Amino acid sequence: MLAAAEACGGKLEDALAPACAVELMHTYSLVHDDLPCMDDDDLRRGRPTSHKVYGEGMAVLIGDALLTEAFAILARTPETKRYGIREMLVEFADCGGSKKLIGGQVLDLEGEGKDLTKRELVRIHENKTAALLMTSLRLGGMTANATPRQMEGLSEFGYNLGLAFQVVDDILDVTQSTEVLGKTAGKDEAVDKATYPSILGLEKSKKEAARLTKKALDALGVFGRKGMKLEEIAHYLLDREF
Amino acid sequence: MLAAAEACGGKLEDALAPACAVELMHTYSLVHDDLPCMDDDDLRRGRPTSHKVYGEGMAVLIGDALLTEAFAILARTPETKRYGIREMLVEFADCGGSKKLIGGQVLDLEGEGKDLTKRELVRIHENKTAALLMTSLRLGGMTANATPRQMEGLSEFGYNLGLAFQVVDDILDVTQSTEVLGKTAGKDEAVDKATYPSILGLEKSKKEAARLTKKALDALGVFGRKGMKLEEIAHYLLDREF
Repeated sequence: MLAAAEACGGKLEDALAPACAVELMHTYSLVHDDLPCMDDDDLRRGRPTSHKVYGEGMAVLIGDALLTEAFAILARTPETKRYGIREMLVEFADCGGSKKLIGGQVLDLEGEGKDLTKRELVRIHENKTAALLMTSLRLGGMTANATPRQMEGLSEFGYNLGLAFQVVDDILDVTQSTEVLGKTAGKDEAVDKATYPSILGLEKSKKEAARLTKKALDALGVFGRKGMKLEEIAHYLLDREF
Repeated sequence: MLAAAEACGGKLEDALAPACAVELMHTYSLVHDDLPCMDDDDLRRGRPTSHKVYGEGMAVLIGDALLTEAFAILARTPETKRYGIREMLVEFADCGGSKKLIGGQVLDLEGEGKDLTKRELVRIHENKTAALLMTSLRLGGMTANATPRQMEGLSEFGYNLGLAFQVVDDILDVTQSTEVLGKTAGKDEAVDKATYPSILGLEKSKKEAARLTKKALDALGVFGRKGMKLEEIAHYLLDREF
C-alpha cells in the first residue's frame, strides 16, 4: 500500500489509515479462517491462534471487531481530487465482501477434500488473496490521486503478485517446517486440500510462481523508477522462505 | 430510521440505504450471537438458525458477509449539507465496534452464569441494543440534514427506547411461548442469564419498561407533530407480545 502510494507520487502518511484498515481486514480473515469450524488451525505467526487463547466465541467477536474497526479507520483517509471517501469505501467493502474475500473462503470450504482443476484453484486465490492485494495497492493509489493508467498498473501488478504469493505459500507448506513457517506445515496435504503442488507438482509450481511474478513486474512500466519499491516487494515475495 | 428521517423533515428514500445497512448489521449480529460458541440458539424468527441450516463455518461467513455488505450499502447514502459520508461511516462503525455492539456481547458472554447488578445489566443493553437503535435514528436524522437539537432528541429517544425494548424482551422471554416468540422461550433462565425479571422481578420490570418508554417519548418534543410515527413505534414496542 505505502509503496503503491509512493509509486504514484503520493505521501506515505496519507496512505497510513487505509494501510491499517487493510491490515485489520486481513487479520480478521485469518482469525475467522483459523476457527475450528473453518480451517481449524492451532498456530498462526508462531503463536497459538485466537480461539486457542480466548475461546471460540471470543475469537468470533475478535474477528468481528477487527473488521468493523477496519472501516472506522478507513474513514480517516484523506480524500483526493479524483477519489472521495465513498469510492474508497466501495473498493474496500467489495474486496472484503461475498463476491471476493468471503466468496473465496466459501469456495475454499466447499472444495476441501475434492479434486479441483487448476482453474478452480485460481478462482479461489483470485478472490481470497489477489483481491486483497489489489485493493491494498489501489487504495494506496487513490490516496496519491493516481491516474487511471497508474490504477490499471497497480491492479495488474496486484492481481499477478497475489496469485504468485499464493503459489509460493502452497510450495512452502510442502517444503518448510512448522517452526520456520510459524503456522502448521503440511496442513494442506493433511486435510486433502487442493494446492498448486498437488495439481501441478512442485517443479511446475515454482515455474508458475516465477511466471506470475514476471507478469506482475511487467505491469510496473508505467511507474518508471518510482516503482522500485514495488519491484523489490515482488522479488522478496518470490524468494521468501516463510 | 425512516420515521427519524421523516421527523426531521427528510425524504424517506434518502434514508433507505442506511436503513438497509443497519438491518444487515443487526442480522449479522444475530447470526453470530446464535452460534454454538456464543448463545447456541436453534431457532430465530420462527426458523432454524443459519448454522443449523448451513453449518457453523458457513454461518460465520454469512455474518461476515452481512457486516461487510452493510458498509458497502451505507456508501450509497446521499450526503447532506451538515453530514458527509465520513460522519455516517464513523457513526455506523463506532456503533458496531468493540466499544458498543461487540463490547456488549463480550460483557454478555462474560456475564453468563454470574449474578449481575442492575447497573451491569444496563451496561450490556446500552451497548448491545440501545446503541444500534440510537445509530439507526441518528443516521436517519443525518440523511434529513437534522439540526443538532433534533439529533439530540433522536439520541435521547433511541437510548431510552433501546433500553425499554430490552426490558420488554426479557419479560417476553419469561411470559411467552417459543411458538409466539419465534425463538427459544425461557432461554435466559435455562442458561442462568441475568435479566430484568431475574434482578427486579416481573412487576418492577414492567414498570421499568413503562418508565423508559415515557422518557423516550418525552424526548420527542422537539419534533412536534412530525414525531408521531416515532411515538407510535414506542407504544408498539412497549405493548408488543412477541
